[in-house]
Order: sequence, then structure tokens, then C-alpha cells
Amino acid sequence: MIKINEHYLKLQASYLFSNIAKKVGDFQKANPDKDIIRLGIGDVTRALPQACTDAFHSAIDEMATDSGFRGYGPEQGYEFLREAIAKNDFQSRGADISADEIFVSDGAKCDSGNIQELFTTDARIAIPDPVYPVYLDTNVMAGRTGDFADGRYKGIIYLDSTKENNYVPSLPAEKPDLIYLCFPNNPTGSTITKAELKTWVDYAKENQALILFDAAYEAFIRDESLPKSIYEVEGAKEVAIEFRSFSKNAGFTGTRCAYTVVPKECAAFDAKGGKQLIHPLWNRRHCTKFNGVSYPVQRAAEAVYSEAGKAQAQELVSGYLKNADLIASEIKNLGYGFAGGENSPYIWIEGKRDSWEFFDMLLSKAGVVCTPGAGFGKCGEGYIRLSAFNSYENVEEAMKRIKAALA
Amino acid sequence: MIKINEHYLKLQASYLFSNIAKKVGDFQKANPDKDIIRLGIGDVTRALPQACTDAFHSAIDEMATDSGFRGYGPEQGYEFLREAIAKNDFQSRGADISADEIFVSDGAKCDSGNIQELFTTDARIAIPDPVYPVYLDTNVMAGRTGDFADGRYKGIIYLDSTKENNYVPSLPAEKPDLIYLCFPNNPTGSTITKAELKTWVDYAKENQALILFDAAYEAFIRDESLPKSIYEVEGAKEVAIEFRSFSKNAGFTGTRCAYTVVPKECAAFDAKGGKQLIHPLWNRRHCTKFNGVSYPVQRAAEAVYSEAGKAQAQELVSGYLKNADLIASEIKNLGYGFAGGENSPYIWIEGKRDSWEFFDMLLSKAGVVCTPGAGFGKCGEGYIRLSAFNSYENVEEAMKRIKAALA
Repeated sequence: MIKINEHYLKLQASYLFSNIAKKVGDFQKANPDKDIIRLGIGDVTRALPQACTDAFHSAIDEMATDSGFRGYGPEQGYEFLREAIAKNDFQSRGADISADEIFVSDGAKCDSGNIQELFTTDARIAIPDPVYPVYLDTNVMAGRTGDFADGRYKGIIYLDSTKENNYVPSLPAEKPDLIYLCFPNNPTGSTITKAELKTWVDYAKENQALILFDAAYEAFIRDESLPKSIYEVEGAKEVAIEFRSFSKNAGFTGTRCAYTVVPKECAAFDAKGGKQLIHPLWNRRHCTKFNGVSYPVQRAAEAVYSEAGKAQAQELVSGYLKNADLIASEIKNLGYGFAGGENSPYIWIEGKRDSWEFFDMLLSKAGVVCTPGAGFGKCGEGYIRLSAFNSYENVEEAMKRIKAALA
Repeated sequence: MIKINEHYLKLQASYLFSNIAKKVGDFQKANPDKDIIRLGIGDVTRALPQACTDAFHSAIDEMATDSGFRGYGPEQGYEFLREAIAKNDFQSRGADISADEIFVSDGAKCDSGNIQELFTTDARIAIPDPVYPVYLDTNVMAGRTGDFADGRYKGIIYLDSTKENNYVPSLPAEKPDLIYLCFPNNPTGSTITKAELKTWVDYAKENQALILFDAAYEAFIRDESLPKSIYEVEGAKEVAIEFRSFSKNAGFTGTRCAYTVVPKECAAFDAKGGKQLIHPLWNRRHCTKFNGVSYPVQRAAEAVYSEAGKAQAQELVSGYLKNADLIASEIKNLGYGFAGGENSPYIWIEGKRDSWEFFDMLLSKAGVVCTPGAGFGKCGEGYIRLSAFNSYENVEEAMKRIKAALA
């Protein structure tokens, strides 16, 4: 008899963004004339950079001829893209990462979800709260948690990110094996300093733990003292894997390209306590369960590193940062506490009431969609997240309406 | 201490196609003037159909403007593509599959590798021999096998596909929970009749087993009596999941688009023996660990179903089938037994000697790359696979050289 993996049954049925979509849909139905402004989901809204679409078109022209056609590419990604990544995103910032430590993929969601397969089922997992739900759900599916009760899964070491610790979690009392960190943070918009990150790297080293560092939002960092990569911190290569994406810096959410860095010296252990390098394990997984990113998409991603591409991506990000700045200053004027809004596209607002109540109120009174903080975890209760991913005009209009609604 | 999933250590280190690449590389180095013809790996060689590149270009033009831009799409794929698939690949052949039973993905390799996550670790797995290595390796990684010994993993129910059973395995003596089948078969090129497939569907039903049906090569079927989909067989919707790909019918190996069919009534069981539908489980996995296929790629895939796209894809496949026919007739003339060569791009040849010996001989004497059958499993020993994926001119030349080498 074929039996299901019962860990799936522990998953909380209602997915945050589906709930929001349903509520927004119902509201739109009841108010067909109302113009809704979406500052909820973290999806970009502006056109792909022209350097990228130009390269995209050229690659398709190659694929349209027998002589230029490319079939299966290397599962790890084409050398041209891996070299451009290593040079521009790491070596230029003093982080010694080489092309063969880069694994190109179709999304940071996939990679950050799949990476846990490499480790034992009884690994103790530390996950921030609030958090991007994928880290948690993929570990639930793999059987690394108990049941869900009182808003949390049993068996997980939650890393509280609160106003008190400036949304940068403290080292946990219980010792984890695998530690998820994300900076600039989704959802709080908080950042981490090199010194703070060094504390985590040192902790991982001392405790033979591994850090999974999600840097999907690094492009929003404008404060040059902040690390864009964990590999800017000494010693990180031995104890950290990093996830990156072209989704937020170059608008690739619908185009799909990302990458994961697994340094050659990054290690875990076998049952006897012997060192086991992670690079060959991830390579084996990647080659067995993945078949490479679309060739034209890789050419489009490569163009992000051209002179024109860099300028155009910068402009995109600056536009979103200008929105974030406007949201932050208006929220401040309204007398609400918040995190983020600089070096991040997110503004994490202390709502002074229940998250979903705030969500409902903003939707009905202002026609603005936010994300209720409670959807990201217990510590998110009482907060909402506003995203800067929209046009400046829409953000201006949204803030006007929010001001009126909260007055 | 972070410990690795030790099941990875059971995996056989040497991957078939890497070994071949190394041997070919060494030979080319030693014989720089020799023109090598590759009939090894199953990768297409001809340009993308023009209908697809036209649609691909148009979608990129949309993405180049703020108004036409698309960010995150539905994880399951856009409705336009799912509808086209359901209508053209299933409903038109009398198989009652609807759009919401289709999950679009970036590859059949990924889907056929990931699907096993939905089931218990102690599920008994039946896998054909010879076989596409992904089915086996992903189950090894998940801990469903013992160690590798004498060419086989312990704990797997191998389904021998031999000359004696016409390369269509018989029902196994031991009862499996999960059964992998692939027709037209990779690597043997064999096909299965509706009556034979019905035997498997009935068997799965009687034994509460589930069939994973890989139909990636269905486009090569020209004999209208043969099933292109398992859902052409009565009762299959309750006990079968099907994998499909645009790789071989429309040359998408480097463009990346595929899909998986999980019918709404397809079920497994929970620990108490209660029915559990697979559709919501796969949907949950897909939404949690995957973020949809690139929008322009989905538009290119949709174009496969346009009038022009259908004609162009047919022409591609016909070209490869013409190659297959030439290979088969020449091999026959040479007095070698074989399977495949019609309704399939593969020709599975009884080599009358060790697989790797035949491989080495063809490479050194004819400059032709084949795939040694032993790489696909114990039952592949003594065989080689020739693939029809090349130009007609190259296939003609290869067969001339093979004739001379074997003379």
C-alpha cells in the first residue's frame, strides 16, 4: 500500500498569501469601483532592464538556428554567468568566491527549500520569527518538527526578532545544527552589521553548526558599512551557504534566475564525526534533480553585470528605495514605530492592534493591501509589512489614503 | 553538530555521462583531427520551432514595459498553457484531464526526482532495469535503499526489461508500493501496448500501488494504436501520475519546460489506511519549493500548440525519426539484434560483447559516441544505445563509419 509522507499533514493549511488574495478578491467584488493599491506581496512591478531584454532576444535568435542552438547546458549554470557572478558580486567586494562555487538555479525559493535534504532528519533547526515561510515549511515536510501548537511547530528553535533586539536575533540558548538567517530581512526590513554577523559565524564555528544565509535583498543595501554577503565576514566560507537572486535587483521574479554559493571548504560531518564537504553533495543533488536554467534566461542574467545592466538595475532599485523612503517618513509622521525602509524594500510597522485587524482596516478604509505580520510568525503579531514594490505615484496615493484612514 | 544525510554516500560516484565525456575528451585530445559524431546523450540538436521563438520574443517585449511586465506567476503555471496542454495532449485523445490537474515545471527530471518526497521512506520501490538513473538515485538519496552491491541497490524491486519480455517488464513477484514506468522507453526505445499498460494499471489498483509514468518521449509515437498517455487506459487516473516534457517534441532541452499530471482522484493512503488525495500534497510541495516557470518560456511552450507550432514540432520529430529509421535498418543489415528505432528516438543494440568495450571500439575505430548499456543497469550489460538526435548527414556518415568498423 502506497503511503503518504504524513509530515505534510502537519503543515498549516492556510497559506498567508492565498488568504490575502481571497480577502482582496472579496473586497474588490463588493467594491468594483474601488482602485486597490497593492503593497502586500514582495513582487517587483517595473519592466526588465533593457540590457537584459536585449541579451534575452539575442539568445533566442541563437536558439532559432541549428548552428546557434543550445540543448542541455551544465546543470550548475554556464561558465559565462558563474564567472560574472563571482567577479562582480564577490571578488569585487573582497570576498574570495570562485565561479565553481556558484550554482545557478531557477529560484532562491527552490534552493533555500531544497538545501535541507543534504542533512540528517534529526538536525536541530534554528529559524527566525518572523520569517519567510519556506524555511519552516520545508523542514516540516522533511519531518524535522513536531506538530503545530500555539502558533509554533514543536522541535524548532525559534530565533525571536523583536523591537528589543532591533530585529537581529540573539544567539540561542539551545544549540542548533542548522541556522537560517536573512538580511536585509524579509519581512522586517532590518539589516545586520558585520560585527553582528561575525558573532553568528564564530558561533557556528564553535558549535559545528551551519548557517544558511539568505541575501536575496542585498541589492537594497546603500550603507557601504553593511555586508552584502556573509563571505565579507572572516571565516564564513567554512560554515555558511548563501542564497542570492536576480528577482529583486533586476526584476526577475517572472523570469526566474537565482544562485547559491557553496564554498569548497564549507563542511558538515558524518555519523562518525568526520568532516564531509558540502560542495560535492550539493553538486550531486543539483545534477540529479535539476537540469539547468533556460539558456536565454542565463544570458539575460549575465547582462545584469554589463555596464548598461548595472546602471539600469541600480535605477530600478533606487526607484523602489525612493518609495520605501516615502513610506517610512509618512509612517513616522503618523507616529507609528517601524523598522526597515532603508537598505531594504520593506517597512515593518508596529500596528498598535491585531495584524489582521489592521490589514482589514487598511483594505476597507484605504483600499491598500499590506501583509499582516502574524502571517510570518508569532513575533509578527501586532505588525504589518508594507512593500515598496510599486510605482512612485501609487505609493504616494497609498500613503495619502493611509494617512486619511489613520487620522 | 550538523550531520549530512548519509544516504548520499551510497550513491555510485561515477555518473554515466561524465564518464563518457571524459573518454570522449581524452580521445579528442589524442586525435585532434578526428571528427567525432555524437549519438550518445539524448539531447536534441535542431533549432527551436519558429512559432516558439516568435512567441518567446513577443513575451520578452511585454516584459520590457511596465504595463506588460509580469512578476511572480502562478506556481502551477499560467492558465493559457495549462488549458492548451489539457486540450491538445489529453482531451483530444479521449483522456479526461483538465487544466487544473496539470503542473507546469522546468523539467521532467526535476518532477520525476521530486515526486518521491510525497511518500513514506519505507515505501517499496519498483524500478525498471535498464533505466534512466534519476528514478533510482533520488530514492537512494531519500533512504529507500540499502547499499550498492553487485551492480544493484539492496531493497529495490528491479523490473528486468530484456529481449525475452520484449523490453516490457512483467509484473513483479514481490509487491511494490511505487512503480516507475517509462514508455517509449529510455534507454531501450521499446513501447507498450494499451493492453500491456492496462495490466499494470489493474495491478496497481488491486495492490494499492501508485504508477509514476514517464511519457517524455510520447511525441515519437507514430503507431496510432499505442498509448501516448497512461490516461488513455481506463482507470489510470486513480493510480497514476504522468510526466511530460517539451524537451524532445519541441527541442526545449536548453529552454526548460515540462509538466506533471496529477489527476484529482489519484490517491495514496495514510498510516491508518485512509485515502489521501495526492493532488493537494503535490500542489503544496510545488508552491512551497518552486516558483513557477519563466513567463517567456511558458509563452514559447504555448506556441507548440498553435497551428504553425504543431506542424514545426512534427517536422522536428519526423526528422529525428528518419534518422532512427536509418540507424535501425543499417544495424539490421549488419546482423545485430536491436529494439526501438520506431516510435522512439533510441536504438538499443545487442552488442555481442561488453558494453564499454563496444563503446571504446566505436569511438576509436569510427569516431562515433554511443552510450554503453551497462550505464543504465545490470540488464543493459552487453548493449549500447544509439540516439537519433543529430542531423541526417551526421547520422549517414556515422552509420558508414560504423559499418566499416564492424566489417
